[in-house]
Amino acid sequence: MAEFAAPTLRDIHTASARIAAHARVTPVLRSAELDALAGATLLFKCEHLQVGGAFKFRGACNAVWSLDDDEAGRGVVTHSSGNHGAALALAARTRKIPAHIVVPEGAVAAKLANIERAGGILHRCAPTQAAREEACEKVQRETGATLVHPYADARVMAGQGTIVLELLQQIPHLDTVIVPIGGGGLASGCAIALAALSPQARLVGAEPAGANDAFRSLQRGQRVTDIVPHTICDGLRATIGEPNFALLGAHRVEVITVDDAATLAAMRLVWAELKQTIEPSSAVVLAALLAQRERFAGQRVGLVLSGGNVDLDALPFAA
Amino acid sequence: MAEFAAPTLRDIHTASARIAAHARVTPVLRSAELDALAGATLLFKCEHLQVGGAFKFRGACNAVWSLDDDEAGRGVVTHSSGNHGAALALAARTRKIPAHIVVPEGAVAAKLANIERAGGILHRCAPTQAAREEACEKVQRETGATLVHPYADARVMAGQGTIVLELLQQIPHLDTVIVPIGGGGLASGCAIALAALSPQARLVGAEPAGANDAFRSLQRGQRVTDIVPHTICDGLRATIGEPNFALLGAHRVEVITVDDAATLAAMRLVWAELKQTIEPSSAVVLAALLAQRERFAGQRVGLVLSGGNVDLDALPFAA
Repeated sequence: MAEFAAPTLRDIHTASARIAAHARVTPVLRSAELDALAGATLLFKCEHLQVGGAFKFRGACNAVWSLDDDEAGRGVVTHSSGNHGAALALAARTRKIPAHIVVPEGAVAAKLANIERAGGILHRCAPTQAAREEACEKVQRETGATLVHPYADARVMAGQGTIVLELLQQIPHLDTVIVPIGGGGLASGCAIALAALSPQARLVGAEPAGANDAFRSLQRGQRVTDIVPHTICDGLRATIGEPNFALLGAHRVEVITVDDAATLAAMRLVWAELKQTIEPSSAVVLAALLAQRERFAGQRVGLVLSGGNVDLDALPFAA
Repeated sequence: MAEFAAPTLRDIHTASARIAAHARVTPVLRSAELDALAGATLLFKCEHLQVGGAFKFRGACNAVWSLDDDEAGRGVVTHSSGNHGAALALAARTRKIPAHIVVPEGAVAAKLANIERAGGILHRCAPTQAAREEACEKVQRETGATLVHPYADARVMAGQGTIVLELLQQIPHLDTVIVPIGGGGLASGCAIALAALSPQARLVGAEPAGANDAFRSLQRGQRVTDIVPHTICDGLRATIGEPNFALLGAHRVEVITVDDAATLAAMRLVWAELKQTIEPSSAVVLAALLAQRERFAGQRVGLVLSGGNVDLDALPFAA
């Protein structure tokens, strides 16, 4: 990763223009009830309403349309527990090229169905990082497909950073933006955009306590890679990427961790008050805010609802 | 009801101006997946994102702000299984006047909680039309409060009609608008607005097969009032109002009935694809469209999602 070149604000603007014909401008929703509960002005950026039901389409679409025609013709490949895989398949479809998706056993059924529906070519593997990477390399060798890593990829980061670009066009003044942290692609892109466009605003990451590798990595100043994730947030189980870790450190992004019970309570609040069907990985942002209510009191806070691909047959509510 | 004066387009414009400071302009959402499934362009008007989580706030707010100061000071009263009650309480709060809500036993817990949270004064009664009316009259005698009927009220109809006004501003050309039918307040206001502003478009009502009094009334040319409703659509169990029946007949509104299984399947589709947490009474509009897919094929159809107040502890999905 020594050669990794982080995206700039200019790359994020380029990404924004590149994906404009394919991605959606997602709405910002509010709830008087949630504002009252938080004692702050909450502005929910609805990326669960993005194409494919998650923010991931932005980065995947930017990556797919960054390729030259020769590269594109050989297709793209990635490993993903779900939303990035579906997003890459959908993005590939906009360019009529093949997308190979390596999926670890145990992924959420609704997300697998999304990948297949989007025309992605599924490759199953064991649920370990090594098995994922090996399966990806095999596809690359056999097809010449370009790897589009879910988060440790500058094109993907730039695509995710367009969320902050768009949010600041919709809501010019924000004190804080809170995003979920899994591998750190969303947080990296948003940190770069926010630092450039609204330097007085803070980016805060929300991470499950049961997959707190970003939190511990930033605390130690060294990337922690030996955590076995245990959380209902299936989209946030990845280990923070190497360039992502470096970028979050450089931008002094702070991470708040929340346990699954708090995340579920927040998810329920979003369903009940905002009437939005979000997945657990989205709810960590509200859980983090409510966990440190006094700190955000009176602020204008942007919260990125990252995805809405939840199994309606296996809802985590109630007994 | 001999003296009933139906609202005009002008009344609907007046209502729109009157409620503008309090009601929300709700977004119109789309889903490529649902368009593909329907073979039509579906434009979902998100009234479940209205203040109080249902379209009812529009009519209640118009009624409350139609009163002169003396009348207003004595408060308002209504009977409601839920959404209209909460809406009237919220509307009364915007004018700082008391709202008495008569609630039949068996109402949805989430809706009762909304009424109480909005500051409404609850009066319980037996779940019959006679008991509801008697309880309302008692409150009127004792307090001098003004009755704001949930649907057989010109101010309420005019308020609900502002939905079509707003929808046509957002989406200028529509072939059909589909709304749920309970007592017929929403359908009446929308029929008047649509006939005046877009006479080539059709208004279609969607009604549960287990509460098909509007369907049967229009078929017979005579109001049918002896149906015992049996449907999961708790917001659509009311009997069509007398003036509502007359207005729907005059505007030749057609009603499509759907059984609860079709409504549940449609509700699930809206949750999964549109990522919107709607209640069963909202889902009848999509169920009706899918039941007669060939007929709406290729059309631009506005579908009013009427409310999102669903009991998350008692979801009707799965086994």
